[in-house]
Amino acid sequence: MARLCGLGMGREVAVADEREVAVAQARQGDDEARALVERLHDPARVLALTDGVFAIIITLLVLEVHVPELTGGHSLNEALAELRPSLVAFVISFILAGMYWVGHRDLFALIRRTDRGLVWLNILYLLPLCLLPFGAGMLGRYDQEPVALRIYGLVLVAIALMRVVIWLYATNRPHLLWQRLDDRQRRAGLAVNLIPGLVYLLAFLVARIAPGVSLLIYAAVPLLYFLSITVLRSGRQRNQEYADFT
Amino acid sequence: MARLCGLGMGREVAVADEREVAVAQARQGDDEARALVERLHDPARVLALTDGVFAIIITLLVLEVHVPELTGGHSLNEALAELRPSLVAFVISFILAGMYWVGHRDLFALIRRTDRGLVWLNILYLLPLCLLPFGAGMLGRYDQEPVALRIYGLVLVAIALMRVVIWLYATNRPHLLWQRLDDRQRRAGLAVNLIPGLVYLLAFLVARIAPGVSLLIYAAVPLLYFLSITVLRSGRQRNQEYADFT
Amino acid sequence: MARLCGLGMGREVAVADEREVAVAQARQGDDEARALVERLHDPARVLALTDGVFAIIITLLVLEVHVPELTGGHSLNEALAELRPSLVAFVISFILAGMYWVGHRDLFALIRRTDRGLVWLNILYLLPLCLLPFGAGMLGRYDQEPVALRIYGLVLVAIALMRVVIWLYATNRPHLLWQRLDDRQRRAGLAVNLIPGLVYLLAFLVARIAPGVSLLIYAAVPLLYFLSITVLRSGRQRNQEYADFT
Amino acid sequence: MARLCGLGMGREVAVADEREVAVAQARQGDDEARALVERLHDPARVLALTDGVFAIIITLLVLEVHVPELTGGHSLNEALAELRPSLVAFVISFILAGMYWVGHRDLFALIRRTDRGLVWLNILYLLPLCLLPFGAGMLGRYDQEPVALRIYGLVLVAIALMRVVIWLYATNRPHLLWQRLDDRQRRAGLAVNLIPGLVYLLAFLVARIAPGVSLLIYAAVPLLYFLSITVLRSGRQRNQEYADFT
Repeated sequence: MARLCGLGMGREVAVADEREVAVAQARQGDDEARALVERLHDPARVLALTDGVFAIIITLLVLEVHVPELTGGHSLNEALAELRPSLVAFVISFILAGMYWVGHRDLFALIRRTDRGLVWLNILYLLPLCLLPFGAGMLGRYDQEPVALRIYGLVLVAIALMRVVIWLYATNRPHLLWQRLDDRQRRAGLAVNLIPGLVYLLAFLVARIAPGVSLLIYAAVPLLYFLSITVLRSGRQRNQEYADFT
Repeated sequence: MARLCGLGMGREVAVADEREVAVAQARQGDDEARALVERLHDPARVLALTDGVFAIIITLLVLEVHVPELTGGHSLNEALAELRPSLVAFVISFILAGMYWVGHRDLFALIRRTDRGLVWLNILYLLPLCLLPFGAGMLGRYDQEPVALRIYGLVLVAIALMRVVIWLYATNRPHLLWQRLDDRQRRAGLAVNLIPGLVYLLAFLVARIAPGVSLLIYAAVPLLYFLSITVLRSGRQRNQEYADFT
Repeated sequence: MARLCGLGMGREVAVADEREVAVAQARQGDDEARALVERLHDPARVLALTDGVFAIIITLLVLEVHVPELTGGHSLNEALAELRPSLVAFVISFILAGMYWVGHRDLFALIRRTDRGLVWLNILYLLPLCLLPFGAGMLGRYDQEPVALRIYGLVLVAIALMRVVIWLYATNRPHLLWQRLDDRQRRAGLAVNLIPGLVYLLAFLVARIAPGVSLLIYAAVPLLYFLSITVLRSGRQRNQEYADFT
Repeated sequence: MARLCGLGMGREVAVADEREVAVAQARQGDDEARALVERLHDPARVLALTDGVFAIIITLLVLEVHVPELTGGHSLNEALAELRPSLVAFVISFILAGMYWVGHRDLFALIRRTDRGLVWLNILYLLPLCLLPFGAGMLGRYDQEPVALRIYGLVLVAIALMRVVIWLYATNRPHLLWQRLDDRQRRAGLAVNLIPGLVYLLAFLVARIAPGVSLLIYAAVPLLYFLSITVLRSGRQRNQEYADFT
């Protein structure tokens, strides 16, 4: 028993390799080894933490929409005009966070087990994500300022980068997945995660010379996203593997 | 296996259609296709995100109740009088958020599976909901100001609108439900979601000419809600289909 | 099927009465009626919302501990002395929130199903609970001021009141419980929920004439709580029914 | 039935001792006693609360990164230079919180049941953890100030202390665990929890005479952590019991 535990805690913890499990089981001759392995690689708490972080982020975004100073002479239009930049930053960031959450949910529908690497990559993905309310605050306050637009772009590029890393890490380890992906599917998922990153890189690069274009790109991505979902839905028969990573 | 996966990820992901599942199963000859479909449409994380957002919203509402400046001469009544507008806005918004959460829980007790459309409609429902603390902040600070009352009304109308859209979307897709609803039930649920929206629209419209009436309407809805629950409870035998959507 | 649904949605939703379920089942002749009833009364989301609110409250408490202004001449002791009132309010409120959460967990370990009344009483219990960070903010800033001490007391009395109401409501409805409680157990639980409320009422009443005594009472309750747990643990053989409601 | 309940609520609640369960079961002659015991000791809500608190803490950390005042003449580098101290404090605290969460997840993968002591130790562990955003705020604002560095150190030492206490408490009670740990494993886990505490104590002690060294230690721990994971991974064969507590 103690010996099993030593094995279980020292080796299986960090591996999640079907063959090692098989070896351990053969050696122990019971189901306990597998139960321990499954418990240690259960994605449940990773999802609980991630869903909690997403819930807080999209709710914190509103803290950057400040109650304006109202006087008797203020009209609704004037108040809304004053709020417009921070409301625009709120809506863009909210939709982006929604896209990231949907993407995370789709990815983890494929994942059966987590290992230490995946757990930490997920935490390091949450790091730039937690900077999104800060980025939205800058964008809402300085929506014409190249520096604010570039910092917002940096945050989005870092998020996209971590999504690519997690995608490559997870899909390259079939023992973490419910079902092995073929090469075409892996490339499709890579493209879906990589392309937004490149678009945000572009928005970052043009921010200095054309801040308006940069803001337009940030606002356009959610629109393009919903458009592409609709198009892909109707054309699902032809482009099957793209439809589910968006 | 890879072929199944290609199918599973390309088609079943976005469909949740009983017939397609049946076809896929017949083609694969095993239970894996169904397991994948169920995993991809599992509402669990949608509920986790939504419950998290509701928990944060009702807790953030209190951040708009600011610690007043107290001096030795202050009495409890004076302090409470100073806090009254923001406490009123807090209580109204808290009860409203509670009503929305109970409504969401009732709706999702009917829902067995989510599809991409429902997932996104739910996120777009959370968007105006996340503006509730901002609306409460305006209401608490400018409870006599038409503009503040109108912005609060806009937020509530947007929430009601999204509830109606989700209700129509979900109840129109029997493959997403545990049990098909008949037309009378669908109309009853529609009314329950639509009527508050119309009441808030009224409060929005009268805010400019009679701000006091507008505030009264916002305060009255929770009271009417509890009253109607009680009445419906005792008269449940006659109006069965209204009782559970309130 | 549609008929069952009509029944299920109109009547079973709000009842959770064993006899009605039995009648419905006899009428339908299958397990669907029971499945629907269980789904509609599942406490899972009530617990998810409540745990989320508790997690946020105990984390928001720290927002009332403000980073002090430091200058080169500041010593650690001076900084801590400056922070002392808000740290004291933080620790008291944190332990109180912990006690409330443990009490909620103990109560819901007895509860098998929720009905609409219990769901709403739970929400109305969260209302004064969400005012705890506000109360802690007042206490931390004006720890000598009678008004602040009385408002803190009002919040705690309201929480205790709601706990008593929920205890009476739930234990008076055996169909909501896993196991019926006998009268001695109900009285014991009532006492455990009522006594703190009376103590806080005392602290509220003495705040005007003796603010120091009032603060002392707030600080003493957590200490007495831990002491009573320890005493009850060693004397568990004699006072069985008190041990688990603390 | 009532008698069983009296037993279940008075004795089993606080014990979780296999032998007592066996006695109770023999006395009752059914599975209800065990079901009640398992429900009362279920770690689920402890994990829900803890994951919620961690999610909020890592998201609140960003609130200490304030949107800087930007003027037209500001370059990206200047803005980032201004943000650098608070970003450094954010990243250090974020990674530390991630390490604590991973450690909590690893520990509770070993824990099958909680008792009242473990539930309260977990709450008292969350107390200093909730002070982390406050500590990060001090570090970000006064990264050269000995007092701020010492307060940050105090928070980290308190967290490490609570981790050691929980480790000793849980691993000393085999009836709370899925599998008994042997002495070598208990010592290994103790070391993993104790050593960071000693390092932070060192950082606290040197803060007065060498603030730069203190800050360096705080920044180095996450780096050393990732380094040690990598080294331990490749040397897993030799140091099995260390690998999984890091």
